[in-house]
Amino acid sequence: MSHTHRPIRVVVWGENRHEQEQPEVAAIYPNGMHQTIREGIEENLGSGATVTTVTLDDPEHGLTENVLENTDVLVWWGHAAHSEVSDEVVERVHRHVLAGMGLLVLHSGHWSKIFGKLMGTSCTLRWRSEQDRELVWTVDPTHPIAQGVPHPFIIPQQEMYGEFFDVPAPDELVFLSTFSGGEVFRSGMTYKRGFGKIFFFSPGDQDYPVYHQKEVRKVIANGVEWALTVRPERTDPVLLRYETEDFYVGHDYRGAMAN
Amino acid sequence: MSHTHRPIRVVVWGENRHEQEQPEVAAIYPNGMHQTIREGIEENLGSGATVTTVTLDDPEHGLTENVLENTDVLVWWGHAAHSEVSDEVVERVHRHVLAGMGLLVLHSGHWSKIFGKLMGTSCTLRWRSEQDRELVWTVDPTHPIAQGVPHPFIIPQQEMYGEFFDVPAPDELVFLSTFSGGEVFRSGMTYKRGFGKIFFFSPGDQDYPVYHQKEVRKVIANGVEWALTVRPERTDPVLLRYETEDFYVGHDYRGAMAN
Amino acid sequence: MSHTHRPIRVVVWGENRHEQEQPEVAAIYPNGMHQTIREGIEENLGSGATVTTVTLDDPEHGLTENVLENTDVLVWWGHAAHSEVSDEVVERVHRHVLAGMGLLVLHSGHWSKIFGKLMGTSCTLRWRSEQDRELVWTVDPTHPIAQGVPHPFIIPQQEMYGEFFDVPAPDELVFLSTFSGGEVFRSGMTYKRGFGKIFFFSPGDQDYPVYHQKEVRKVIANGVEWALTVRPERTDPVLLRYETEDFYVGHDYRGAMAN
Amino acid sequence: MSHTHRPIRVVVWGENRHEQEQPEVAAIYPNGMHQTIREGIEENLGSGATVTTVTLDDPEHGLTENVLENTDVLVWWGHAAHSEVSDEVVERVHRHVLAGMGLLVLHSGHWSKIFGKLMGTSCTLRWRSEQDRELVWTVDPTHPIAQGVPHPFIIPQQEMYGEFFDVPAPDELVFLSTFSGGEVFRSGMTYKRGFGKIFFFSPGDQDYPVYHQKEVRKVIANGVEWALTVRPERTDPVLLRYETEDFYVGHDYRGAMAN
Repeated sequence: MSHTHRPIRVVVWGENRHEQEQPEVAAIYPNGMHQTIREGIEENLGSGATVTTVTLDDPEHGLTENVLENTDVLVWWGHAAHSEVSDEVVERVHRHVLAGMGLLVLHSGHWSKIFGKLMGTSCTLRWRSEQDRELVWTVDPTHPIAQGVPHPFIIPQQEMYGEFFDVPAPDELVFLSTFSGGEVFRSGMTYKRGFGKIFFFSPGDQDYPVYHQKEVRKVIANGVEWALTVRPERTDPVLLRYETEDFYVGHDYRGAMAN
Repeated sequence: MSHTHRPIRVVVWGENRHEQEQPEVAAIYPNGMHQTIREGIEENLGSGATVTTVTLDDPEHGLTENVLENTDVLVWWGHAAHSEVSDEVVERVHRHVLAGMGLLVLHSGHWSKIFGKLMGTSCTLRWRSEQDRELVWTVDPTHPIAQGVPHPFIIPQQEMYGEFFDVPAPDELVFLSTFSGGEVFRSGMTYKRGFGKIFFFSPGDQDYPVYHQKEVRKVIANGVEWALTVRPERTDPVLLRYETEDFYVGHDYRGAMAN
Repeated sequence: MSHTHRPIRVVVWGENRHEQEQPEVAAIYPNGMHQTIREGIEENLGSGATVTTVTLDDPEHGLTENVLENTDVLVWWGHAAHSEVSDEVVERVHRHVLAGMGLLVLHSGHWSKIFGKLMGTSCTLRWRSEQDRELVWTVDPTHPIAQGVPHPFIIPQQEMYGEFFDVPAPDELVFLSTFSGGEVFRSGMTYKRGFGKIFFFSPGDQDYPVYHQKEVRKVIANGVEWALTVRPERTDPVLLRYETEDFYVGHDYRGAMAN
Repeated sequence: MSHTHRPIRVVVWGENRHEQEQPEVAAIYPNGMHQTIREGIEENLGSGATVTTVTLDDPEHGLTENVLENTDVLVWWGHAAHSEVSDEVVERVHRHVLAGMGLLVLHSGHWSKIFGKLMGTSCTLRWRSEQDRELVWTVDPTHPIAQGVPHPFIIPQQEMYGEFFDVPAPDELVFLSTFSGGEVFRSGMTYKRGFGKIFFFSPGDQDYPVYHQKEVRKVIANGVEWALTVRPERTDPVLLRYETEDFYVGHDYRGAMAN
């Protein structure tokens, strides 16, 4: 049940467009949002994680087969350029999630190709980008992702995301957010798909300094630890032809669950 | 909460290849599996449903926009030719499910494009086609789909489908099946996706007369009734820009949930 | 799957103490809260339900074995006198819920003996009785209980109930409420226990005219329809000694699931 | 998110009656079933746990306030004498579970007072004590409790427990068992109640040497690790009066979730 004792290998994927094109975003995230997210994870996990970053404009968006094979948990932030992510890379990431790679989808990543492909739904929601205050409440107090997080914690300015959020009912509902306009959002949810674990966390936007906030960084770091699979190796779920009483004699049976 | 009082408009989609190519299948299902499935629904729902059938080889596989707009519940059986179903039709069916069309996926439909797209997983499983006896047990006795169904009921000969079945944890687990080889399968599961309701039911195979069996027909008919959405109209989930206090003043707000 | 065609037999249980002792409550609910709740159900279900009321001060609190045997759905409102409800009556109601009687628990009923006994938890929460505005949002738009209910609907003045609400994760999360103070609450949740269906709905308080509000009455009526079991008869779950292959030969087997 | 680094403090509660009264049980479990269970945990967790045992006939059944305060995870095996467990001790254990103590309920503990109190249902099932072979299948392959456990594993002789098992739908379904008679059982399920984590695991009986089996011991040890709460201290869920904007100013607010 225990983790391997090597550091968790985390890759933060950043779209990195707003930062290039909008000075007001660059002012908040001068090194790119992905770097700020990375620092938040390092701040919390220290030597327990090695965190690298890749971006949309890297070859193959930085997500080659080799990179993914060596990634325990992928963190995804995208917004303006979801459509520029190639279908081939999305297929590759999807395959690795089903085989056991953890995935954190942040904020506007709700409309990324990879999240839509994993959820099977439209992932639409309500939104408003004004000066809403967001309160994040814990509804699963024993969940590892909620540890060390005030109840509630306050994000002074944030884009509003509201229900109805068209996603499957989550395996676990961890956080609920309210906004000063009165809206509500299921802001922290976990899903298992294949052998992979997925955490969606909605706080975070290019227009606000949300990823500099201590509590948000703590949640993301907790999410990274949680999303690490405890399965010993990465294997694809496969269709298995299964002879009579194979399970009984135990020979010549190979497959994902033959652990 | 009550149903519309018109009959449920059901379309049974049949791949209809085994029946054409294999005499032993044609012997069991001389009019095609889709016709036998249709008869089972009619037998149980009588004037409560109008059931039609379409097949893979129909133009647009029989699933035109017009057909789907007029379908309350679609029943899907496919096996040998999943890859021949066009992506365009799969997109269309997917959109209608999210907008509120009910969907029953039967047996080997677990590997259809539409089911995979809705689940987001590999939908792989274990299987063996021998002379297994399948017992179907109810684990949600208050569920409408389980009413009038013996606990357990026995399918004398059936293909074995076994765990691990790579699908999301269901919203509701209704049936569990065991096989004479000792395997187990989550054989009746419900999911909501968008505004649509989905029921997966694993019994049924081209090599065995399963769809002639009374209990199987009862479950499918119950599933059809359950999958009928109670929402008054079919609307897509859409992304909504939502002005401050729109919900409060109540005007100029349009969208799927503005009911 | 279809209902029996007789009207749903509903009993509204009212504690009926605040109305007797506090003139300001009597001013809002001159005939007792239970009568207002009853009228709301009748208004929506018409001839589809026969609704009666009983109160704490009736012999056996109005919940004799005979009354419960003839009740399809029990609606529970209590607050100040939970401890005066006799354990014997609580046992009796509990047994009937497990055997298939529907139960709606309203508002402060969260701390009733019967709800605690069914949940197994402390059912504690946060609260504040000021002039909060409550917004009730739908997060399960295909759920029967959410039909015909605006998204959101607004309760102008209401007691605040906030998370963390110590209850089991629900089978279905239907509504989320936000309050003008920024709090959030899982305000509509369903549970199955034994063969019975339970709906908890938090809006409603003796100090505010909530049960006169159209949307609240609609939700309660929807809840009554939903909580009606579709099982044909009321039977207790029982421990069953089960001989080898009884299920196979099908004789001499009796019990709750032998339907 | 990480555990405290001290060993997990485990207490195995054994009814210890069959072992005293039935020579054939004593032959299988000469030191008592609780000792065998203890050894299985120690074998797997080594210095990661300190395991002690108490029995029904100890003063206060060995479960004093002081013992429970110093217990991280309680493991419960009882069968013949459920009714002899005092209600006062049951209340005490219940309070500690809600406050964060982990609980493993084994086999016939399904009918213990403490499990019934936490579930809120009858916890009835089907059973047969013959020479059934039980196969235990994993349906949640990423779950920590399933790690290092063959899929399936085989218990050569075991009492049959079959559905319908009258418990709430679990938070997580980890294992399903099949029996040579064809029955099925949800044999590994997790629940959260209050701040405590509960794992029910059905294999194990006084008449068979199940607790000597390697795979069963591994599952129980995994369950102990999983059930350890990650909350930093044990606190009861409490009802909280919550003044306007308390969460905002952050002072004078005390309670279970004020972490």
